[in-house]
Amino acid sequence: MSNQQVYMDHAATTPIRDEVFQKMVPFLKNNFGNPSSMYQIGQTSRKALDESREKVAKVLNCKRTEVIFTSGGTESDNTAIKGGALALQTTGNHIITTTIEHEAVIQTCQALENLGFDVTYLPVDRYGIVDPDLLKHSIKETTILVSLMLANNEIGIIQDIPNLSSIIRSRATELERTILIHSDAVQAAGFLDLNVKKLDLDMLSLSAHKFYGPKGVGILYTKHGSPLVPQQLGGGQERQQRAGTENIPGIVGCAEALSIAEEQRVIHSSHCEKLRDRLLDGIKNIPGVILNTKANACLPNNVNVAIEGAPAESIILGLDLLGIAASSGSACSTSSLEPSHVLLALGLTADLAQNSLRLTLGKDNTQEDVDFVLANLPNLIDRVRAIN
Amino acid sequence: MSNQQVYMDHAATTPIRDEVFQKMVPFLKNNFGNPSSMYQIGQTSRKALDESREKVAKVLNCKRTEVIFTSGGTESDNTAIKGGALALQTTGNHIITTTIEHEAVIQTCQALENLGFDVTYLPVDRYGIVDPDLLKHSIKETTILVSLMLANNEIGIIQDIPNLSSIIRSRATELERTILIHSDAVQAAGFLDLNVKKLDLDMLSLSAHKFYGPKGVGILYTKHGSPLVPQQLGGGQERQQRAGTENIPGIVGCAEALSIAEEQRVIHSSHCEKLRDRLLDGIKNIPGVILNTKANACLPNNVNVAIEGAPAESIILGLDLLGIAASSGSACSTSSLEPSHVLLALGLTADLAQNSLRLTLGKDNTQEDVDFVLANLPNLIDRVRAIN
Repeated sequence: MSNQQVYMDHAATTPIRDEVFQKMVPFLKNNFGNPSSMYQIGQTSRKALDESREKVAKVLNCKRTEVIFTSGGTESDNTAIKGGALALQTTGNHIITTTIEHEAVIQTCQALENLGFDVTYLPVDRYGIVDPDLLKHSIKETTILVSLMLANNEIGIIQDIPNLSSIIRSRATELERTILIHSDAVQAAGFLDLNVKKLDLDMLSLSAHKFYGPKGVGILYTKHGSPLVPQQLGGGQERQQRAGTENIPGIVGCAEALSIAEEQRVIHSSHCEKLRDRLLDGIKNIPGVILNTKANACLPNNVNVAIEGAPAESIILGLDLLGIAASSGSACSTSSLEPSHVLLALGLTADLAQNSLRLTLGKDNTQEDVDFVLANLPNLIDRVRAIN
Repeated sequence: MSNQQVYMDHAATTPIRDEVFQKMVPFLKNNFGNPSSMYQIGQTSRKALDESREKVAKVLNCKRTEVIFTSGGTESDNTAIKGGALALQTTGNHIITTTIEHEAVIQTCQALENLGFDVTYLPVDRYGIVDPDLLKHSIKETTILVSLMLANNEIGIIQDIPNLSSIIRSRATELERTILIHSDAVQAAGFLDLNVKKLDLDMLSLSAHKFYGPKGVGILYTKHGSPLVPQQLGGGQERQQRAGTENIPGIVGCAEALSIAEEQRVIHSSHCEKLRDRLLDGIKNIPGVILNTKANACLPNNVNVAIEGAPAESIILGLDLLGIAASSGSACSTSSLEPSHVLLALGLTADLAQNSLRLTLGKDNTQEDVDFVLANLPNLIDRVRAIN
């Protein structure tokens, strides 16, 4: 038996589906042509690129020409926000986002502040939800861009993007301005509808390795006509919007994974939700456990709880020894000693934030996995508390 | 028999070595952990990341902490030039580069001009060589960065970087300034020594798919202490210099490919050179063929010739029908109708530039491949000229 038996950190990354890997293999082997090349092996890559773009467009309900392939969610977020803000800087300098965005959004906004942009970081309620009225009243005559994540990576909270977008659109019309709406949907893929028309977005970010696709590849949707200053310059790839030789194996894998994720979305969500409910039922009965958000407002695979008197680091190490992979929140900031900015934004104390455990379920988890966690976690918590 | 028999466009991209692919497979399958995660499967990825960085550092003769993994050569070039220029903008605004750089360098410099930077594009001689005296006299009291490619992607011309670097270092000392030296070594890998101490560089760019590694991954060397404003923000990956979940399979493949490329460098170069000399001997005897540069000053795998009266597009299509993959120059700008900026910089007319054919050899090419091209090219040229 492998030492690693139960993987419950699907929000950090997911394994590549075997069907996806199989689709990538020819492009990692014989079909290695550069899609910009005129000859046959180049055109084989070009065709794969076009077909991948078409697959993504179908899931997003957009045009093929509105899909840009990037190196991942971070690049997509950076490009959307920086590229959008710079494109509209002659019309205003105000950006709105939230306090619980991913670091890729927050740090990009902070960098823009250093360039003279004015950024409003909307607070959220105890569960991570943005107040629509507050959003409405934050929009002003200089607002050029709003970035609101579809679902949070740490606590899984879902924002009502169609409603928030419609508020922004109304205010933009009243103010007679262009206000770009971006959403980081990296964590939502595979669970929520990514139809950009229903979400009413100008830009949306995705990352393949979060939906059983490969690492190193992402998607940026940009609505036709949406102003964007390209952030990576060079060859004319991706309709001059993102230069660099296309990562064909990655792109093929990304598109296939997204297609399957969409096909399986309802089944996958329901599978995760059943396991999540069982897991949550067990965990919430452990004394001194505080739920960090509302299960019914969250992604169906997310459990995030604060455990009084038990630092997450010790719990995670203990779980690892049992063969259970879990985390304290964003993998991106695991090495940081700071408490999670998302949990602090919910109003948790620094102590409780650092005592928070995230378990995120996936397609291969079973009821046995959940029961194994539930059989071991209470005892582990007791031991950690005793040492502490 | 496959329709595609002879691949002679290794400057556009190369196939992944089987040994490299095999190294990547475990990380595309079971070892999918996020290297920022604390638990075992995450730490397996972390170890692979560290080992990959060590492999690259050995080839470059630098410290592990001086190696940043990126999404490719274009990102490396963009980050080096934009990140370096922005880091030093309070000390000056002058950048020096050449007229024959890759578009990733030229367009980044042009974007910086729009931000108020002053860029000198050094001309080159008939063969593509930068005049050291001209470089020396171009350096002024506002110079902050010089970017000079190690070997050109279209014509293969090699610059004497150690000498040029030493000129820059001397002037920097005289002027008591920090002047960053960057080199785009994307095309040189596998042929030239990438020892950054000998090259005397602050930054160097590489792209894995040019040395039998995967697409979608590259390297940026930045000397310890070298000022750089990160261009992709978010999680703290790559020592805060390049955010985004690390593309572990790509990074493992990149490092392995670079290691092998260095081991095989002398053999590979000599293999290509023999074939190149045979190819060139045959081609230069075709009437109306003009060599675009000097073979002895170029990468050993490069042939670039202008063919009077024969548009490259027709020649390439004709070669493709024969099963030969060739190009007219940079794959990145193949779709552009403009003549190559590199060939124009050599002094070619637009017509001759558009009649230029690039054949670039690789490890799997054989004497039979060369003879097959030589057996067919003269007749093809005659036919194209007749139609034209």
